[in-house]
Amino acid sequence: MQLISIIPGFKPKNDSRLLEKAELLKPGLYYTPYPAPTAFRVNGQEISPAEMPDRPLRRGDQVLMDFGRHIVGRFSLSLDQAGSAQDAPAYIRLNFAEISDEFGEDPKQYHGWLSSSWIQQEEMHIDILPAQVCLPRRYAFRYVLLTVLDTSLKYQLLVRGASCTGESSADETALPARTFPDDELKRIYEASLRTLAECTQLVLEDGPKRDRRLWMGDLRLQALTSYVSFRSIALIKRCLYLFAGSRFPDGRMSANVFTDKEPAADDTYLTDYALWAAPTLREYLAETDDGEALDDLLDPVLFQVDYVLEHFLTADGTVKEEAAESAFIDWSDNLDRRTALHGVLIQALEAAASLCERAGDPSRARFYRDKAEELRQTAMRLLWSEEQGCFLSGDQVSVHSQVFMILAGVMPPERASEALERAESLPGSPRMITPYMHHYYVMALLAAGQKNRAEKHLREYWGGMLRTGSDTFWESWDPSDPDGSPYGGRIVNSYCHAWSCTPAFIISRYLLSSPT
Amino acid sequence: MQLISIIPGFKPKNDSRLLEKAELLKPGLYYTPYPAPTAFRVNGQEISPAEMPDRPLRRGDQVLMDFGRHIVGRFSLSLDQAGSAQDAPAYIRLNFAEISDEFGEDPKQYHGWLSSSWIQQEEMHIDILPAQVCLPRRYAFRYVLLTVLDTSLKYQLLVRGASCTGESSADETALPARTFPDDELKRIYEASLRTLAECTQLVLEDGPKRDRRLWMGDLRLQALTSYVSFRSIALIKRCLYLFAGSRFPDGRMSANVFTDKEPAADDTYLTDYALWAAPTLREYLAETDDGEALDDLLDPVLFQVDYVLEHFLTADGTVKEEAAESAFIDWSDNLDRRTALHGVLIQALEAAASLCERAGDPSRARFYRDKAEELRQTAMRLLWSEEQGCFLSGDQVSVHSQVFMILAGVMPPERASEALERAESLPGSPRMITPYMHHYYVMALLAAGQKNRAEKHLREYWGGMLRTGSDTFWESWDPSDPDGSPYGGRIVNSYCHAWSCTPAFIISRYLLSSPT
Repeated sequence: MQLISIIPGFKPKNDSRLLEKAELLKPGLYYTPYPAPTAFRVNGQEISPAEMPDRPLRRGDQVLMDFGRHIVGRFSLSLDQAGSAQDAPAYIRLNFAEISDEFGEDPKQYHGWLSSSWIQQEEMHIDILPAQVCLPRRYAFRYVLLTVLDTSLKYQLLVRGASCTGESSADETALPARTFPDDELKRIYEASLRTLAECTQLVLEDGPKRDRRLWMGDLRLQALTSYVSFRSIALIKRCLYLFAGSRFPDGRMSANVFTDKEPAADDTYLTDYALWAAPTLREYLAETDDGEALDDLLDPVLFQVDYVLEHFLTADGTVKEEAAESAFIDWSDNLDRRTALHGVLIQALEAAASLCERAGDPSRARFYRDKAEELRQTAMRLLWSEEQGCFLSGDQVSVHSQVFMILAGVMPPERASEALERAESLPGSPRMITPYMHHYYVMALLAAGQKNRAEKHLREYWGGMLRTGSDTFWESWDPSDPDGSPYGGRIVNSYCHAWSCTPAFIISRYLLSSPT
Repeated sequence: MQLISIIPGFKPKNDSRLLEKAELLKPGLYYTPYPAPTAFRVNGQEISPAEMPDRPLRRGDQVLMDFGRHIVGRFSLSLDQAGSAQDAPAYIRLNFAEISDEFGEDPKQYHGWLSSSWIQQEEMHIDILPAQVCLPRRYAFRYVLLTVLDTSLKYQLLVRGASCTGESSADETALPARTFPDDELKRIYEASLRTLAECTQLVLEDGPKRDRRLWMGDLRLQALTSYVSFRSIALIKRCLYLFAGSRFPDGRMSANVFTDKEPAADDTYLTDYALWAAPTLREYLAETDDGEALDDLLDPVLFQVDYVLEHFLTADGTVKEEAAESAFIDWSDNLDRRTALHGVLIQALEAAASLCERAGDPSRARFYRDKAEELRQTAMRLLWSEEQGCFLSGDQVSVHSQVFMILAGVMPPERASEALERAESLPGSPRMITPYMHHYYVMALLAAGQKNRAEKHLREYWGGMLRTGSDTFWESWDPSDPDGSPYGGRIVNSYCHAWSCTPAFIISRYLLSSPT
């Protein structure tokens, strides 16, 4: 599956009133200094921080710096020279990595469909030493690898120091105190919040290494987690206004919005992402009771649901193939998405109904609720396989189909559990690839009353990423295929990714004894 | 021959009084805008400047920009994008070349003894398009090759424009009007002045591509050429003060001085370069009658001659092997340098005598003049081969030996011509590699009364560089080995080099009918 939409001549339709409000909601950033790496290795050998400043480096030498934790921000080097005079520029390469495995891959060997320009590497010449080299770009990293491409026969390079400044708009002081039954859950919770904080920038980014952009599928999960932690309320509102303020000319919401310049909807439409706008707004209002947001955003959000109802239902009341083809659901090449999308649509209809109630429009609310009920019945009639005891999508059985149907409230808990078990036990059914999908799976387990299994899965799956040595959660992780990548190469994978931040939400809301 | 001197713990001895005067003599720079390349090629195909701004560029595409002449200065690019939104950074490489042949060599394949950091190349990521990319470093180039390392599947790169700003402290308005007998001589003259102007910066640099530094061997030839052209009198004085102001602790002048920071003599001593200080000062005073310079510089300059007399003469009055080993003369691996250096020493003694006369010290002047005469007699007695009709250096016959002996006035013109012819006709004698050496060869021909041969050689040798398409003169050029390099790879050769700028001097002084 390649997610590359190109609509020739596409121009988003911008609503300046909404975008001005989004601009006013832009947060300030907190800057955190990291004055030095916590550990150095030179050519693979550990060297103490005290020895590092005087270690002469020659052509080919490599210095691995470990800052001890994932950081999003700017990087600076203090360089000097030893030996005779500097008779030629120093020439260095810097590679930045979120996890150390990234250094095992050769950037030149990446030929996948994402741009290799995301690989975090720089080459530079330093004409005059000593020099303070402050890199202007922002990086996402824990490790920095400096390679000496050349000095000269007359002199050697010295790395006197390295520092960085973390950037995030997440307010650490807003975090509630929590106690945990054990260390594993605590560590998962903390990595979850670190992941969220690193993605909490001038918008809620999907990943600070790559894309660095506002995507609806990520936004919903970030917002849910933020409500129980940093409570970046204004930023979440800003993001909703950005989606509503720059849309397709026909009113559809884009899957993502570019915000580095004048905000601009991407020409990528994902059916499920557009539908998540309604639940995301409902969840926002449950936290804030923000009447202005309801007034401004109701119509744009309901439009997303109406559009699908109008354009993407077949005569028999299931979603059309073309709508499923433009749905995300998960990074699975061989996934049939129709049934899962049907489940997402029901959830969007329920959210739409709830928004209409809040807006004082009970008749419209009833319309959406009736529609949701009708789609549930259609699902049981046309998509459910009595023989297999679970939902089909086309001929395909997948966990994905069960998960979104369970979250749509189509089945009572007991039946839901059985359907999930059937799908999971079927050999060859599509695997869940992303923490995004695993989040919905855990939510489905909880909805099916399987709290123990939910907690076990959370510990195994998210805990598995931490057991590799990472301190943030990833964009993509299939424990049975740890080297897999949706992008044709792990080197462009994002190892701190918004949609994987939800364990803190799940733990706080469902697993701790005193839920918030 | 590798020119890499490293003296552990070396610290130059600086004279702050002289260095302050040097600082006050620092020139301003003239900035010349070059608003656009004169020609573009995309993937080898010529494209009109009018079409270029709208030509979408994808991964792997290459744009060759030709600015139509050699430029030393800063480079800027105006970049934009076509297609769908820019969903990833643009990633480009820029290579700068003085001659287009440089692009035929792979920087990664250079493994010579000079630093590969001199290869003019940059890689960069542009996060947001459109962008004006202004490179902070200075380059020496006529051609710029932009390689698109990556965009993304969604967008293409556009090169809306490229421009540069030339930098030089040479005053073009000071140039005298000259008329030439033919176009060839005019073109050689102009390329010679362009070469000098490009090297005329905050100091007289050896080459703006590489080293970018003040070397005595270059300074003398630049100064001679500048007197008949830009007349950068204050800058020449500044350079002499820099050599005198930062020296070896024992008083010797370094072969070159670093001036990017607090001036600092390099720890490289070249016997002939130190000796050239006296002729260089004498020539400066012949142009300026600058009493302050004579007062300040006489002692430091005479010290260089005295040092050689004291340390580097054998009991029989010829120069020691160790002095010859630390002499430059030319980039020839197999050259025996003793006899050539003996000739340089005589010239330095004559210059020292002349400086003492000017300073009102006739007895010291006589000392140097007598010493010069004594060395001439020693040369004829011990270094001249009656049998071969020319000078030997050890057992070796070389043009180099004859040239510096002729310029030392050891032989009358007729005998000089014969000696040169003998050396040139001997198969297997060391070849002349550099325009530096060819300059002294032409001067020797003139001293031997061979004006026609001098002019013919100037047209053939320097004209040969122009016939390759270059518009500046090079650091190194042996027509019989056009791919040769003293540095183990042509890609680090300098193609605009100070010591090759002398044709304008020779033409103006010796070849034009109304010499200046």
